[in-house]
Amino acid sequence: MRWNDLAAEDCSLARSLAVIGDRWTLLVLREAFLRVRRFEDFQDRLGIARRVLTERLAGLVADGVLDKVVYQQRPLRHEYRLTEKGLALYPVILSLVHWGDRYYAGEAGPPVLYRHKTCGHDFHSVLTCSECGEPVDARNVALHGRGVDRRVGGESR
Amino acid sequence: MRWNDLAAEDCSLARSLAVIGDRWTLLVLREAFLRVRRFEDFQDRLGIARRVLTERLAGLVADGVLDKVVYQQRPLRHEYRLTEKGLALYPVILSLVHWGDRYYAGEAGPPVLYRHKTCGHDFHSVLTCSECGEPVDARNVALHGRGVDRRVGGESR
Repeated sequence: MRWNDLAAEDCSLARSLAVIGDRWTLLVLREAFLRVRRFEDFQDRLGIARRVLTERLAGLVADGVLDKVVYQQRPLRHEYRLTEKGLALYPVILSLVHWGDRYYAGEAGPPVLYRHKTCGHDFHSVLTCSECGEPVDARNVALHGRGVDRRVGGESR
Repeated sequence: MRWNDLAAEDCSLARSLAVIGDRWTLLVLREAFLRVRRFEDFQDRLGIARRVLTERLAGLVADGVLDKVVYQQRPLRHEYRLTEKGLALYPVILSLVHWGDRYYAGEAGPPVLYRHKTCGHDFHSVLTCSECGEPVDARNVALHGRGVDRRVGGESR
């Protein structure tokens, strides 16, 4: 399998990775969730080459994850804002962050704490089932559907 | 910032990306969650170059995400199993999958359906707060801590 085939593979993870499976892209998204919107600010904060940043932003706009919006006419200036589709990546980002907190924070503790405005508490994220609301982990999930039947003979973890 | 600096950055996302922020690595993890354990099986299923697979598996073992375990003595054979730290990546994988389901499944629908053994229903994943159990999204989370104070002046989305 080559990278260019990823988007065509009948697998939702592969399709997602075709859009955001790149570390620079994920760091650009981190900044976007921190409300960074302007090219120069992304560039300053990430120390990323301008050409690479231009490519990544264009890709995220093409994929509908960011909107490129005019915020000033003279001279013409654009900023980049998360779309609904982009905001829907928050669970991916937050799950990655909390995994890092759990295994890499060390003695200093997590560098960033997350407070849930709804309840006012610092929290970590818990992945739950849309149907019963209980937590899900790999051991209590079974897979089915055409992708499983074809690829793994219906086995599940 | 260079890739080699990512692990040293005081950001849990950057540290996580230093371990798994690579598309092949994420696809290797996908296979591991589908119970693939042997080198040849990873290779057959991913069509990945042997050298690249060897590197990625060794990296995941070094980072404590996979265990390399002897399953046969003569001839000596190893397999790769997710550790607890590896299993803790399930929310990342599942969130990526469900984002792909939501935006890329098309008319054929999601290729793989996830059934929660606890309740018996097909589900999608919902990220919730460890403290109150309600869903979290970018708009109802505020950030604080040394990483925020230094980097974004305490602003939150």
